[in-house]
Amino acid sequence: MIDLNADLAEGFGRWQLTDDEALLASVTSANVACGFHAGDPLTMRRVCEQAAAAGIRIGAQVAYRDLAGFGRRTMDVPAEELAAEVAYQIGALEIFAHAAGTAVTYVKPHGALYNRCVRDPEQAAAVVEGICTAAVPLPVLSLPGSRLHAAAAAAGLPVVDEAFADRGYLPDGTLAPRDEPGGVVSDQDEVVARALAIAEGGEVAAIDGTPLRLSARSLCLHGDTPGAVRLARRVREALAGGGFTVRAFT
Amino acid sequence: MIDLNADLAEGFGRWQLTDDEALLASVTSANVACGFHAGDPLTMRRVCEQAAAAGIRIGAQVAYRDLAGFGRRTMDVPAEELAAEVAYQIGALEIFAHAAGTAVTYVKPHGALYNRCVRDPEQAAAVVEGICTAAVPLPVLSLPGSRLHAAAAAAGLPVVDEAFADRGYLPDGTLAPRDEPGGVVSDQDEVVARALAIAEGGEVAAIDGTPLRLSARSLCLHGDTPGAVRLARRVREALAGGGFTVRAFT
Amino acid sequence: MIDLNADLAEGFGRWQLTDDEALLASVTSANVACGFHAGDPLTMRRVCEQAAAAGIRIGAQVAYRDLAGFGRRTMDVPAEELAAEVAYQIGALEIFAHAAGTAVTYVKPHGALYNRCVRDPEQAAAVVEGICTAAVPLPVLSLPGSRLHAAAAAAGLPVVDEAFADRGYLPDGTLAPRDEPGGVVSDQDEVVARALAIAEGGEVAAIDGTPLRLSARSLCLHGDTPGAVRLARRVREALAGGGFTVRAFT
Amino acid sequence: MIDLNADLAEGFGRWQLTDDEALLASVTSANVACGFHAGDPLTMRRVCEQAAAAGIRIGAQVAYRDLAGFGRRTMDVPAEELAAEVAYQIGALEIFAHAAGTAVTYVKPHGALYNRCVRDPEQAAAVVEGICTAAVPLPVLSLPGSRLHAAAAAAGLPVVDEAFADRGYLPDGTLAPRDEPGGVVSDQDEVVARALAIAEGGEVAAIDGTPLRLSARSLCLHGDTPGAVRLARRVREALAGGGFTVRAFT
Repeated sequence: MIDLNADLAEGFGRWQLTDDEALLASVTSANVACGFHAGDPLTMRRVCEQAAAAGIRIGAQVAYRDLAGFGRRTMDVPAEELAAEVAYQIGALEIFAHAAGTAVTYVKPHGALYNRCVRDPEQAAAVVEGICTAAVPLPVLSLPGSRLHAAAAAAGLPVVDEAFADRGYLPDGTLAPRDEPGGVVSDQDEVVARALAIAEGGEVAAIDGTPLRLSARSLCLHGDTPGAVRLARRVREALAGGGFTVRAFT
Repeated sequence: MIDLNADLAEGFGRWQLTDDEALLASVTSANVACGFHAGDPLTMRRVCEQAAAAGIRIGAQVAYRDLAGFGRRTMDVPAEELAAEVAYQIGALEIFAHAAGTAVTYVKPHGALYNRCVRDPEQAAAVVEGICTAAVPLPVLSLPGSRLHAAAAAAGLPVVDEAFADRGYLPDGTLAPRDEPGGVVSDQDEVVARALAIAEGGEVAAIDGTPLRLSARSLCLHGDTPGAVRLARRVREALAGGGFTVRAFT
Repeated sequence: MIDLNADLAEGFGRWQLTDDEALLASVTSANVACGFHAGDPLTMRRVCEQAAAAGIRIGAQVAYRDLAGFGRRTMDVPAEELAAEVAYQIGALEIFAHAAGTAVTYVKPHGALYNRCVRDPEQAAAVVEGICTAAVPLPVLSLPGSRLHAAAAAAGLPVVDEAFADRGYLPDGTLAPRDEPGGVVSDQDEVVARALAIAEGGEVAAIDGTPLRLSARSLCLHGDTPGAVRLARRVREALAGGGFTVRAFT
Repeated sequence: MIDLNADLAEGFGRWQLTDDEALLASVTSANVACGFHAGDPLTMRRVCEQAAAAGIRIGAQVAYRDLAGFGRRTMDVPAEELAAEVAYQIGALEIFAHAAGTAVTYVKPHGALYNRCVRDPEQAAAVVEGICTAAVPLPVLSLPGSRLHAAAAAAGLPVVDEAFADRGYLPDGTLAPRDEPGGVVSDQDEVVARALAIAEGGEVAAIDGTPLRLSARSLCLHGDTPGAVRLARRVREALAGGGFTVRAFT
């Protein structure tokens, strides 16, 4: 059994980035941007309605407050502020999820905050504190072994391991930076093959060739790359064809 | 019986505007800024905690997205966008109110949105649509006879009439612009006298001298004026001394 | 002789909207977004460099401060603030134009500010006051007969009449709203035909059929529509084929 | 001979922080906020006019794009973006300085960017690249020995050493964080004494007691602390009384 998650609602006002409706046909979990790195309120509302109608689970894709940098620039946000910013974003999304007849059911940090929370216990703890502001304990998606998972588990929150079929890995199992050679896997056949390998618990090569065994209950696909919709469909079909049940984690 | 409401949490990051803690000692309803014209997440969180601790009811002070103009510049926001923006703000505040053990229990538009919704049925309807996104029907604070009250009532939301002891009125019972002579009442004795007159159902003079009878279940005090804390205390004491029970509307 | 202008640099950070480099191959004047409705500093810098290298003149596309609404929501900005905001944007663009070996040589308001300044003498005067902050008198692009042109001429600034080949007109010669039927002309053949008709001083039909004679020293093409690059090329070729010299106004 | 610089124009819209007019009576160099961490266009314009009228030199106080964090949160901004952001801010300020009859004559990074550029050669080089976009070589204010000074000198820009009379120092001569004990010196007598000691080339104690000899052609005073105006006057008087000529660097 495997979950497919993707970042959605990443436009802002006049600007669109992801084909949300098409991607919802392939994923099982929608990481909805919450307005800090992307995601205006109207887009959030629509994606929640579409996801609810399609039976796709909704997660809060929380981020640094950084529209200009799309949340990809690490920021030294004091813990108290960061916790409040995370809570704010979850609350804002929850009203749309609830109005659409469903709820926010997990949290996944975005971009630089995601990467920072893999290694930084202080920001990881702040994110978890923000998540704990929500009315119910929300599962947290991150890399296996991340500081975020450690902090979440310590706070009694469920954690969900995820892996990236379209991103390169460093030998230590963390993501290679996007601008490094191999940081982004753009060949669709290779992405499909990696998705299958990860789902099967097989080995995937880090960017230096080191074999890695990536544990994952959820696979992340990026929606903002060329051909993203087709790739998502192909990955899903390959997983289904490979005998996996593609289903949201519970 | 009369309610005293004031705008709180109207700082943003490094900037502070209102002495939230001191004002909470005098008011019975706190209009908490939600981040669009003012109000960063950490400030919202703290004011919710302080209000909850003091037994003060929390309302969402929703506004145009306009930090640079403090929400005081009228904007032609399309109805769908405006509704979503209002919902977003309520949702963001609700998570902090809930975490503090209470809830958002009413909505009051801020500044230019408030004034626009007195007269403009389209924006008033959009604001009401946004409010209806919330899980429970939230009462709406506005001027008696406003388009906002009409739209809210039509949608089945409770409406609460409010009056301003520290603002001048036009002969038609709407607020005089701040930059007009008499638009802001700055003499504290006069504000106290007007507060009492309004609570008693007596007459108040419009800026041109026209006698007005202002119906009000709630009185609004501004927290961002010099001496605001002292004025709030004086108004409260005068009302209590005049035999009124100062209590949140229900 | 006719000038072709288009809005460029209208992305923001991760988001792109216009194919700036391709459009620069067809236009003679580049309206560069200045960061208030779109246009991050790095994009502004690059477009200035590309425009300078291609010998295309650079204009400041000044706008309301409204990233979320892409500058398309009318705002009641007080005159003093608006003037300062316009100046700020021109100054920010000028440093990039100058560093690229050229200069900002005209100003064109964007979106809602453009439309407001057609009719509103106060905002028009504020925009002109902002433009007059610049070191040299900058020509102003707007509709013939606009309040902006009147204010600019009164201040001693050159004015340049422009027309829109891809937008519908009201019988009074102002632009029909985008969301009205006929407000946007999307058929490329029709846009080309209208461009030629305008350049020739011939008649163009308003959306209700009223014949209009549009005076224009510059034609505006929109870069954010599907097929914008091809359309710009076609319009330029049609004008050149029709015997017009496509050249920036002086 | 010593220069006194202070951060001015650090309000934003409704929010004010510094008493710009009063501070201009004591300082000789005004670090004007440029809109990224603080400083709306109208405030920038007014402070430029006041500074020009008082014969105070104007510098660009460039910062990270971070209104919510007042530019005090370190950000990993890619070099190319940072350079363009710095240039944008200088250009925006220059139009107001020029309109007031003067010019931007130096650059000083603000807050987290200032501190980062003390140590980080990459961001320091990016800031210098942004400064070099300006039409004339602008002197750079920073700590003696900073990476920013090294990068500026390498690019042929003049550098000006500054010291802080109201901030604590680490033993290595860099600033102690604000939230550390001793990070901010709040006793006015002590600030005055330190200002004199620095100007005289005498010793000042780091927060651990290590004696430091701080080289400074300019002294920085903070305008956003209680009593800032009185302190600035006292420091100036003490310096004048001590035989120093308080004058802008050239």
